[in-house]
Amino acid sequence: MALAGKDKYLLTPGPLTTSLATKQAMLRDWGSRDSEFIAITRRIRERLLVIAGAAESHVAVPLQGSGTFGLEATLGTLIGPGQQTLVLTNGAYGKRIVSILERLGRPVSALDCREDQQVDPRALEAALIRSSAIDYVVVVHCETTSGILNDVAAIGGVTKAHDRCLIIDAMSAFGALPIDPDSVPFDALVASSNKCLEGVPGLAFALIRKQLLEGAEGNAPSLSLDLYEQWRGFDANGQWRFTPPTQVLAAFDQALKEHQAEGGVAARHKRYGANRDVLVAGMRGLGFETLLADDVQSPIIVTFLMPSHRGFDFGRFYDDLSERGFIIYPGKLTEAESFRIGCIGALGVAEMQAALAAIEATLEAMGVDLKVPPGAS
Amino acid sequence: MALAGKDKYLLTPGPLTTSLATKQAMLRDWGSRDSEFIAITRRIRERLLVIAGAAESHVAVPLQGSGTFGLEATLGTLIGPGQQTLVLTNGAYGKRIVSILERLGRPVSALDCREDQQVDPRALEAALIRSSAIDYVVVVHCETTSGILNDVAAIGGVTKAHDRCLIIDAMSAFGALPIDPDSVPFDALVASSNKCLEGVPGLAFALIRKQLLEGAEGNAPSLSLDLYEQWRGFDANGQWRFTPPTQVLAAFDQALKEHQAEGGVAARHKRYGANRDVLVAGMRGLGFETLLADDVQSPIIVTFLMPSHRGFDFGRFYDDLSERGFIIYPGKLTEAESFRIGCIGALGVAEMQAALAAIEATLEAMGVDLKVPPGAS
Repeated sequence: MALAGKDKYLLTPGPLTTSLATKQAMLRDWGSRDSEFIAITRRIRERLLVIAGAAESHVAVPLQGSGTFGLEATLGTLIGPGQQTLVLTNGAYGKRIVSILERLGRPVSALDCREDQQVDPRALEAALIRSSAIDYVVVVHCETTSGILNDVAAIGGVTKAHDRCLIIDAMSAFGALPIDPDSVPFDALVASSNKCLEGVPGLAFALIRKQLLEGAEGNAPSLSLDLYEQWRGFDANGQWRFTPPTQVLAAFDQALKEHQAEGGVAARHKRYGANRDVLVAGMRGLGFETLLADDVQSPIIVTFLMPSHRGFDFGRFYDDLSERGFIIYPGKLTEAESFRIGCIGALGVAEMQAALAAIEATLEAMGVDLKVPPGAS
Repeated sequence: MALAGKDKYLLTPGPLTTSLATKQAMLRDWGSRDSEFIAITRRIRERLLVIAGAAESHVAVPLQGSGTFGLEATLGTLIGPGQQTLVLTNGAYGKRIVSILERLGRPVSALDCREDQQVDPRALEAALIRSSAIDYVVVVHCETTSGILNDVAAIGGVTKAHDRCLIIDAMSAFGALPIDPDSVPFDALVASSNKCLEGVPGLAFALIRKQLLEGAEGNAPSLSLDLYEQWRGFDANGQWRFTPPTQVLAAFDQALKEHQAEGGVAARHKRYGANRDVLVAGMRGLGFETLLADDVQSPIIVTFLMPSHRGFDFGRFYDDLSERGFIIYPGKLTEAESFRIGCIGALGVAEMQAALAAIEATLEAMGVDLKVPPGAS
């Protein structure tokens, strides 16, 4: 997994390190209405449904922009003006969904959970029993705020039993964590090109139950973010309504081929899981502590508590690691000081070991030994 | 201006042919919160204002997505719920602006003009005198529906005299047609990366009068398309609120360097003008007719009337030209059958002459001689 030139490894929740072949797929110009480009769009739409095991029941609707654009478009297109939504939140991305719905003027409530705990399916069930007016439930599959994995199968079981619609923000999970409509009865799932599918950023997509989307004409309060019209456009002639990011799509087409060649979701899950295991074991060996218990820790990104050692300066830690070729990620918790290291992208155990060696060298350069209890140094 | 591999020349209104160096700038991965990438964003924002001569008065707010996303974001952020807008329309892109405003629930009326005529500043003045309730006027600088150039200086004179705000859709013009707030008093101008600035698609931007944007907090009915919040994000730490298309921005940074090295707007205007002149003269020599009179024909894209010759089959014409390495563009007029050929992108007179040779050869292969009057063949 060689890098081009002076690239650093991105140990972040995305944009992430992509393969050279994925980047090289961008070295061309396509006419967005030409048959060759129409074929790229078709392949991507078909492949996304195959990955989700949803080709019979759902349609894939890609959208220009970031993942948040895709989320807002899905919520605004599916949820009608009078319909009520309950958002299960245990981090910043769940809270962002609440903000989107508030801005759209849609009635919304939140079931707030702790950032270091999974959202609780029993609490969801109680809320649905209390309020029959809730039409939609929204949950984040992997909350990259902490790196926690939510139990979407249990949540899907509850929403199905109570006959509500389920929308999953699978941004940082799709392509590496198995999901399909049989095991998790989702009505819509939203993700982006530049997470576990290892494309470059600039594209979001939603997989939406066809029957639901068919009834969503005229719902969206936005022309650009109307996924009903976007879908109808693809159905009419395979073309995008508005100029697509052609190179981003070409890179995504290549990234999806590599995903398939690697062995699909199962293989990627295994590789990222191995990355995480090496990272967590190595960091603990250096004296760092993880925020989460191991049984809820995703193989996507790991949150480490900020060491209280007086010699540890996070700004210097970040910069030194960057100079050694590894970009890590600041924390996003509201309650505890922390930082994060991602396990996803075109990298494996060898690169995680190299990152650990760089972290060890950085600590040494800072004169910090976290294995010694603070005060004893 | 060599092309990579099997690229075809894109004689379209964009996505268009970009330089190899612009595409090669995408061969890296950037952390979107890393200092190197923050510097790319800063350079782009500064350069766009310099091109528009608006560094003192305006701010540049880039946005993920297509040009339409940028337009909708600008309209939704600036125009308050109760404010009225008059859109000057002489083509599909003006009509799209009306659709965006209708969808946003903002009061809107249109001053409809013929597709082959400039919008009339005197008609605008009469409309503004009739209705003092109109707060915003919106006009398309170059309507790529036909390729017509609207007289934005005259329109800006009228809106300024009547103290109304002016928003310009400069999508296909900015970077090649001179514009600045002194000669055209615009409050906002919207364009994209993949037109005359010769970047790749995936990015829109708005140049907005700072004072106007400062008062626009809370206007936008969308979180993703809120340019006030987007601007505040850049101002706070130089970072994007939501994941940016990092490679698209790196390509744009390179494209802007090339724009400057070529000699800026004046040089690009001259090159595209020469492309157009060679194209129009050559096509007329082959027996084609242009839709527009020469004095309103932009150097961006030229509409040709569909030949009535019974041997002329546009589908075959398009496919043959594509096989010869040139992608042209279908027509978009509502009233007349037509097709379009673009003059923009990383190509010059030599490439236009090669395109003309390919067109001549294609006509010959079709057994069509347009110089002979129909019926005489």
